Formats: sequence, structure tokens, C-alpha cells
Amino acid sequence: MTLVDAAGAAPAPGSPVRRGPGRPRDAGHDARILSAAIALMERGEEVTVGRVVELSGVSRAAIYRRWPSMTDLLAAALDQGREAPPLPYGDDLLGALLEGYTSPLPAMGAGYSEERLRLRLRLALSDRRLAQAYWRSHVSRRRSGITALLQAGVARGELREDLDLEATIDLMNGVFYYQYVVRGVSFDDPSMLPRCREALRIVWRGIVREPDAHPG
Amino acid sequence: MTLVDAAGAAPAPGSPVRRGPGRPRDAGHDARILSAAIALMERGEEVTVGRVVELSGVSRAAIYRRWPSMTDLLAAALDQGREAPPLPYGDDLLGALLEGYTSPLPAMGAGYSEERLRLRLRLALSDRRLAQAYWRSHVSRRRSGITALLQAGVARGELREDLDLEATIDLMNGVFYYQYVVRGVSFDDPSMLPRCREALRIVWRGIVREPDAHPG
Repeated sequence: MTLVDAAGAAPAPGSPVRRGPGRPRDAGHDARILSAAIALMERGEEVTVGRVVELSGVSRAAIYRRWPSMTDLLAAALDQGREAPPLPYGDDLLGALLEGYTSPLPAMGAGYSEERLRLRLRLALSDRRLAQAYWRSHVSRRRSGITALLQAGVARGELREDLDLEATIDLMNGVFYYQYVVRGVSFDDPSMLPRCREALRIVWRGIVREPDAHPG
Repeated sequence: MTLVDAAGAAPAPGSPVRRGPGRPRDAGHDARILSAAIALMERGEEVTVGRVVELSGVSRAAIYRRWPSMTDLLAAALDQGREAPPLPYGDDLLGALLEGYTSPLPAMGAGYSEERLRLRLRLALSDRRLAQAYWRSHVSRRRSGITALLQAGVARGELREDLDLEATIDLMNGVFYYQYVVRGVSFDDPSMLPRCREALRIVWRGIVREPDAHPG
């Protein structure tokens, strides 16, 4: 498959998302807390700080020092293992988009799976606050790479100068989510990639600057 | 808000989806069976034929005569109350698309709600067979209106003759789903409609036939 809000991301911000001031922390704690949260979510259990303490062996204070709310912790846990393939920056912007969006599943990160994506989307649909926390702390950051790529295209005069970057990225990402969520197809469905590539070409024609555009 | 796979649909197929041969049926039974299924889903209970019999008072045989599997019944129940606003067919194809996709929530059907949409998407993400059944029996049918509208545009020479209709509709629908599923915004979020309208205009530029296109 491909991914969508992964495509063209900047280097992933450090995990966990928030770092407060204070003494240096045990990196092993982060991993234990996140694993405990993921395990609870995968079992369909509610993720409470008490259960995370129990499963991870990390103290309540240390958990809250890292993630100020359970929603923030859930968002970080759902993003675990997710990586963003670097987009090639070059002259061939359309090629970079097609490649970035249709790179194979392992480019999402070896520790990430389609099951994890489905879990994240289900939980986001049940809990709008979680969806918004995930959006702020993960998706919107991952979009920085593709945003920069498009901005460079605008600056070079290759893309329309009035381009709405948010709408453009929502369109390109949205067509992939539609495959999973509405069509119910899997990452490796053979019909999916050609359809999505064609969709990206439609977007391309909609964002590229017409060669004969006259000023004014 | 708007909807997406609702936009531009043909008259909704009769409910329930499948009609077998045989004696005329009690229409009240359909409604009771569907309500029972919805009630079970909303409570998070598993929808078994036994529980549907119990709640609806309709016999097992009568249920299976209408829906050959629980997956088919679930798909029909999730579509209950969903209506498809007719798209105006006229000369202004872009106007029709913008209007059809951004018509207010009541156009989805008075008996339909954002909560129902979220429930449908959550269940579809948990059960790919349900997603595919819903796609076949409901979404793909609802897309027939927008498909006809685009085909007419191609026939008139307004849209590109090599237009990939499936990719086009996936793009336009996908950008709306992205808002709910990934951004976590609601139907009435003030930023959503302008962004989606702009996305539809990008698609439009990508599908319209260039006026100076030379043949060959």
C-alpha cells in the first residue's frame, strides 16, 4: 500500500511528544508505558493511568510527567512504530508525490501494521478528543514534509500560486483513507494502487500552473 | 455538512436490499428487524439472529428470508434513514457538484445522524466483510447518480474523455471522510466546508477538458 498522512513527512518528532523541563528520563520507561497502553487498547480495555501503572511498572508521576493526559498518551501509543518515508526533493514533483504516496507498507515503519491503523481510526471515531489530539501531535506534524514540497513547487512557479495546501493534502490523503474505510479494501488489494495513482494525477492537474496562464 | 457518498445518488434502492420471490411481506417486519439490529449495534452488543428475534418479535425464518446473512442485515441497518439528495442536472456541472457535496446535513435523511455515520465507520473498520457488504449494497448504488452526472459531462465534451470516474468519485468523497476520520472535525465545523469546497475545485480543474486541447 502506501501512506497517506505518512507521505513526505519531516523527520518524526521525538517520542514521547512532550518534554517538560527537569531531570533526564529513562528512555526505557517511554517504551514500557507506550507498550502497556497499546496492549490495553488492543484488548479493548479502557486505558486508565492505574492500569498503565500496573502493566508497565512505571509510576503514575512518571507517566504524567511524560504525557499530561491519557488522551495524549493514547495518541502517542497509536503512533508508535509509525515512520514517515522521506520524499525525494528534486525536479520531478509529480514523480515524488506518486512515489511518496504509493511506497510499500514497510515504509510506514517496521513496527506499524494495517491493524494498528484500523485500531487508531476506530478509536478516533469513538472519541473526537483523541482524534484531535492525534491530529495535532502526529498527523499535522507528519504533513510538514509534503507541505514543504508543495510550497517549493509554488515558489518555483510549477504549482498555482493560489494553491490551498491544506485542501490539496486532504484530497491526496483522503483518497487513501477512503479505500480502507469505505471500500473496505486492504493495503495489498490489486485494484487500489492504480485507482489511487490515477486520483493523484487528477489532483496534479488541478494544482499545476497552466503553462499559458496570463498574469492578472 | 454534506455527504460524500450520498451526493448525487440515484433514488435509494428499496429497503431491505434483497427481495426474494414468494408471498408479499409485512413491511412492518422490515422496520422492526432493522430497528432491533440498530439498537443492538448502538449498545455495542453482537448482532445475532437470536437477539434480533428476541428484540423484534419477528421469526428467524422471516429474518433470513429478507437478509440471507447477519452481515447483510447489519449493512442495511446501518443505511437506515440515509437518503441521497438529488443532484440538479443542468449546464452548470461544477455548481451541481459543489451543491450536491456541500448540502446541509438534513439532506442525508431526517432519520440519519453523524452518530450513525461514525457507528457505521467504526464497525466497518472492525469487520472488513461488513465494509464490503455495505459498499456493494449501499455505497456503490448511491454513487450511480454522481457517476451519471460525470458521464454526461464527458459525453458533452466538458470533462476529459479519458476520465477515471471511480478515481474521481473516490477523491471527492474521500476528502469529506478525511475530515471526520482523521481531522476529527464535526459536520458543522466552520473550517471544514470552505476547505472541502476548495478541494472540489482542485478536482474540477483536474477533470475538466482543457479548452485548447488539441486532438490526438
